[in-house]
Amino acid sequence: MKIRQTTILVLLLLAVPLVAQLKVEKWRTFEIVLKGASGGNPFVDVQVSADFSNGAIKKTVSGFYDGNGIYKIRFMPQETGSWTYVTTSNVKSLRNKKGKFECISNAANNHGPVVVKDTFNFAYADNKPYYPFGTTCYAWVHQGDSLAKQTLQTLSHGYFNKMRMCIFPKDYDWNKNEPALYPFEGKPLTAWDYTRFNPAYFQNIEKRIAQLDSLGIEADLIVFHPYDRWGFKSMNRKTDDLYINYIIARFASYKNVWWSMANEYDFMNEKTMEDWDHFIKLFAEKDPYNHLRGIHNGSKVYDHTNPLLTHASIQNDETFKAKELRRKYKKPVVYDECRYEGNINWSWGNLTAEEMVNKFWRGVTNGGYVGHGETYVTENPVKWGNESSDVLWWSKGGVLRGQSQERIKFLKNIIESAPGYLRPVVNYEWWMPYSAVAYKDEYYLNYYNLDQPRSQIVNLPQKSKYKVEIINAWDMTITSVKGEFSGKSLIQLPQKPFTALRITKINK
Amino acid sequence: MKIRQTTILVLLLLAVPLVAQLKVEKWRTFEIVLKGASGGNPFVDVQVSADFSNGAIKKTVSGFYDGNGIYKIRFMPQETGSWTYVTTSNVKSLRNKKGKFECISNAANNHGPVVVKDTFNFAYADNKPYYPFGTTCYAWVHQGDSLAKQTLQTLSHGYFNKMRMCIFPKDYDWNKNEPALYPFEGKPLTAWDYTRFNPAYFQNIEKRIAQLDSLGIEADLIVFHPYDRWGFKSMNRKTDDLYINYIIARFASYKNVWWSMANEYDFMNEKTMEDWDHFIKLFAEKDPYNHLRGIHNGSKVYDHTNPLLTHASIQNDETFKAKELRRKYKKPVVYDECRYEGNINWSWGNLTAEEMVNKFWRGVTNGGYVGHGETYVTENPVKWGNESSDVLWWSKGGVLRGQSQERIKFLKNIIESAPGYLRPVVNYEWWMPYSAVAYKDEYYLNYYNLDQPRSQIVNLPQKSKYKVEIINAWDMTITSVKGEFSGKSLIQLPQKPFTALRITKINK
Repeated sequence: MKIRQTTILVLLLLAVPLVAQLKVEKWRTFEIVLKGASGGNPFVDVQVSADFSNGAIKKTVSGFYDGNGIYKIRFMPQETGSWTYVTTSNVKSLRNKKGKFECISNAANNHGPVVVKDTFNFAYADNKPYYPFGTTCYAWVHQGDSLAKQTLQTLSHGYFNKMRMCIFPKDYDWNKNEPALYPFEGKPLTAWDYTRFNPAYFQNIEKRIAQLDSLGIEADLIVFHPYDRWGFKSMNRKTDDLYINYIIARFASYKNVWWSMANEYDFMNEKTMEDWDHFIKLFAEKDPYNHLRGIHNGSKVYDHTNPLLTHASIQNDETFKAKELRRKYKKPVVYDECRYEGNINWSWGNLTAEEMVNKFWRGVTNGGYVGHGETYVTENPVKWGNESSDVLWWSKGGVLRGQSQERIKFLKNIIESAPGYLRPVVNYEWWMPYSAVAYKDEYYLNYYNLDQPRSQIVNLPQKSKYKVEIINAWDMTITSVKGEFSGKSLIQLPQKPFTALRITKINK
Repeated sequence: MKIRQTTILVLLLLAVPLVAQLKVEKWRTFEIVLKGASGGNPFVDVQVSADFSNGAIKKTVSGFYDGNGIYKIRFMPQETGSWTYVTTSNVKSLRNKKGKFECISNAANNHGPVVVKDTFNFAYADNKPYYPFGTTCYAWVHQGDSLAKQTLQTLSHGYFNKMRMCIFPKDYDWNKNEPALYPFEGKPLTAWDYTRFNPAYFQNIEKRIAQLDSLGIEADLIVFHPYDRWGFKSMNRKTDDLYINYIIARFASYKNVWWSMANEYDFMNEKTMEDWDHFIKLFAEKDPYNHLRGIHNGSKVYDHTNPLLTHASIQNDETFKAKELRRKYKKPVVYDECRYEGNINWSWGNLTAEEMVNKFWRGVTNGGYVGHGETYVTENPVKWGNESSDVLWWSKGGVLRGQSQERIKFLKNIIESAPGYLRPVVNYEWWMPYSAVAYKDEYYLNYYNLDQPRSQIVNLPQKSKYKVEIINAWDMTITSVKGEFSGKSLIQLPQKPFTALRITKINK
């Protein structure tokens, strides 16, 4: 038996303990690899798990069958110090394997998994604030290495820190190709042995999760989705559960994993509301690390008061209503989909870059978080989506053709440099559509949408002095206003859309 | 006694019948002028009215005191032919005056008053369709002749066919000047004799109503409003009723009059809901011609299911919800205020011209009607609104500085040249935000907002051929698409905001 710290290399080794001092960084994967029988159906016949201990801290983690007689148990230690483990199994050869390792402090670029912080926000496990600025490449992991490489190259520019992606392959306009691999043994389109997973399929996804992690990007994994011609949207409960247990065992030790029960859950007529409640509960019970859990809607927003949902994952383009949803759900509000920058025939993929950027600003300055997507076609004349060979970012990844991503990064930098989590300070009314967020009385960020005020009144505390900066969210400029301000102040503005004010207390 | 056909000239004449054959155009004003006593308080002591007859048609119309011992009874005949009348009064000298006149056919430019047509639309009394494209100059009648002349000059360009205007003077930012005249005898600010009107005040308003009529513009008269420092918003019920009866007697014979109970009724804490119901009822009972009646809200939309309201007068910027409001109220839906093109510090007066134009198109292509307003300041630096000498169109009239009015006229021309009233054909969903209206299967107008589709699918009837034109609502261009279309068609588009499609059946 041997142990490794990352899951990128696949080592096939005998189950013999090593005596060397093994070290694993906090929040990285410690993996036990066991050689066992490959006869019968190891996916369903064999159970294997390990009990991990570090003083009083104990954790039991399920393993999984990775093919070729190899069983793996993956563990993400959340505490430094000496850990020991012992395996349990219904198969003798996998039982009572013991070992130990040292969990060392996390490196500077490892902040651990993201958790909910102060009701409405997120932080990494090491307390560093995390502000989601996500994007969407639903089927990027199913497009082969060459396109994935290009996708990762695009992502390396740091526009985004979250990726929504489907575990199952996708069937939809601009995504009519077959995936390179299938999740089950069998033959397309629909002759699957739902009791036998295809390990290579999941190994590929693990590789992508790890690649995203190395870029500082959270992997928001979509467990089910309705865009399917292979039958994966209509598996029975037993298969669904087997699949969920399998992906938890495989993926949960990756610190950057989030669980999204579905994309557009309400467009999946094959599932009932009871199914969704069951899945949410299953993840809550089985994931040893309590990764973030969400469920994304089509037209009918899920009831996010469900206490097992960690955050509200919303599809809707009224991102300025984030504040209302905060009040309603008492959770972080993430508009994972608010339509995409693009030019396709479908109305959800037609936004100008300006509109996309505006939706980000309105969401963020109302206390929410917003997700990006891009749907540009390039063929001339445009073809029907199911006949087109265009590669659209939203579906396959590749390159970005739009203009919003740079502005999203600009906003991300502004939010990340704020002195703390920002809370909404303006009550939204249609006739008072501007938004503002603040940190205590130290910092205000006001946003005036696509309107063109030539002045604005700001009501600042009387007792302090403030400096005022005019931001243009489109031009990506930040300009200081001459003077110091306090109380009710009329600020002269440039009469341009995308105006925001950053107001910072002067400490004397 | 003498009779005149228009109310612009003020003739002071003895109450002696003339024998000459008097002619009045249908829907113009026939006015009886009677000389009577000026002692006591004629405004409250004297009642005078006339019974008009044309065969079986009978109508009783109240008169009013116009100062200097002059009493007037104004009548708008709605039927051609020979009319006779006889007066009634509690004062002997005004009683039993008889006369007759011939009502002749309306001239080509006289279409009569506007009425509701086919539940959701408007037409003139002669059946010519009327599509409201309104603007707002709340206090233009109180700014003196020179500015009024400029306002009328601006309006003569034909951008608009309705004007929202207050009867009482206005007190608000950019409108802190005293009016030239006051509606009651007494002294400003608040020492009014509420039992004595100032006829010159109302004569001035009548002049403006007639000037608007000569430009083909409906006068949407606002009876009460909250922007007041003189006490007119907080008169008692008895005074309110006296005032309403007086303005009905004076103004109702002008064919282009509409009654708007209030601007922002819900911002008038001085009035109760029962007051508003009472006023609506009073107009319905007392106006002999049943002019259109509306009530305009601040934040709380009035319950327009009230059967005495002829149309829904809405303040809200979500003009795309016109279709919902049609279903709710079963009436014409007029967004009289959806924020204004401008650059002021208040969020309701900050729209870019682009946003204003977009709100018009979204309203109209969802089966509603939309109103314009403009609030540009020019001073540099900008002053507080209550210190500024800027003249803003929305308040005082004058000139237009914006860019929306030409585009509104462009849309108006498109709608007026449609083959009939357009009804909504797309159900609005946030993820399907486009709108379309149609006339039977003959004509479709689809609008794609500020999005940038490079193609769109249109679902046309299979059995006919259609020609397709691409409209750009901002550039004001209409471009034919090559070919003829039927069934489900993918139309290539220019990937620009403000794209609309006009689709017309080819009759072969």
